[in-house]
Amino acid sequence: MLDEPIAAAVDAEEAALQSPAIRALVRQMRAHDTHGAWEKKSDAEVLKPFIVTKAERRAIPVVGDPDSKVLFRIETYWAAIGMAIEAETGTIASPLLRLSHEGFGRVVLTAGRLILVSKHLRDVHRFGFDSFADMANKTEALVAEGVGMLKRFPDVADA
Amino acid sequence: MLDEPIAAAVDAEEAALQSPAIRALVRQMRAHDTHGAWEKKSDAEVLKPFIVTKAERRAIPVVGDPDSKVLFRIETYWAAIGMAIEAETGTIASPLLRLSHEGFGRVVLTAGRLILVSKHLRDVHRFGFDSFADMANKTEALVAEGVGMLKRFPDVADA
Repeated sequence: MLDEPIAAAVDAEEAALQSPAIRALVRQMRAHDTHGAWEKKSDAEVLKPFIVTKAERRAIPVVGDPDSKVLFRIETYWAAIGMAIEAETGTIASPLLRLSHEGFGRVVLTAGRLILVSKHLRDVHRFGFDSFADMANKTEALVAEGVGMLKRFPDVADA
Repeated sequence: MLDEPIAAAVDAEEAALQSPAIRALVRQMRAHDTHGAWEKKSDAEVLKPFIVTKAERRAIPVVGDPDSKVLFRIETYWAAIGMAIEAETGTIASPLLRLSHEGFGRVVLTAGRLILVSKHLRDVHRFGFDSFADMANKTEALVAEGVGMLKRFPDVADA
């Protein structure tokens, strides 16, 4: 038997993997698996590279260009948020992501003339989340922000 | 004496260089001239690389990466449109430009949660205008579009 706090943490991680935004991210990741290399991997394994502990984060240098794998994860992450917003509202949300070579940047999710979500990025070399629960919380919050903007300014999204 | 149509065309070019959006572009270009290399250049000379005739355009290949000089001009062009919108409205308009290696891309000018101008780009290798008059017409139209959006949805720009 696991200790009670540990069992609760395991349950939270399992639940996080079922959140709609995280399901969208799994689908986006698997959509890039054109050779079927991940077919036997669990969802948790597919998402594992998104989990970067605080100690791991500190160990990643932020000088030089972010590597292509972290750039791919950032692209896929924001595409997934767009897909999750579309799944909930029926409105297509397009990501527009600009990163400088130094790891700074900005991303917006747009629908018509409306910016659903806007975020300045920094130290993208270290992009990642403490846990699946942390990822689910932060990602669902971004989806909710986008959905809220669509409800608040529907005419701008149609403009 | 110049022929009358030629004289009219010369006047149109002179007038184009005085349009507010083109003045903003001259200022943006000169702002990058940190070593004063262009101090003795006229505005027309500074803007000359933005003029690409149809024949010149056809001669530029659109395979491979666009060169860094044309990327600089595109960045500077959209920054200038943002500055021209700010000069007219007092609202800061931030450009967000994403180009793929193949010369496709998208640019938006944003204020708060509002997209003032949005444009899909292609064949950016060939970015340029037929004449200063052509450049002034197209650029003032983009500025007017942005100003119009600000007037139409001021609350979104403040959101």
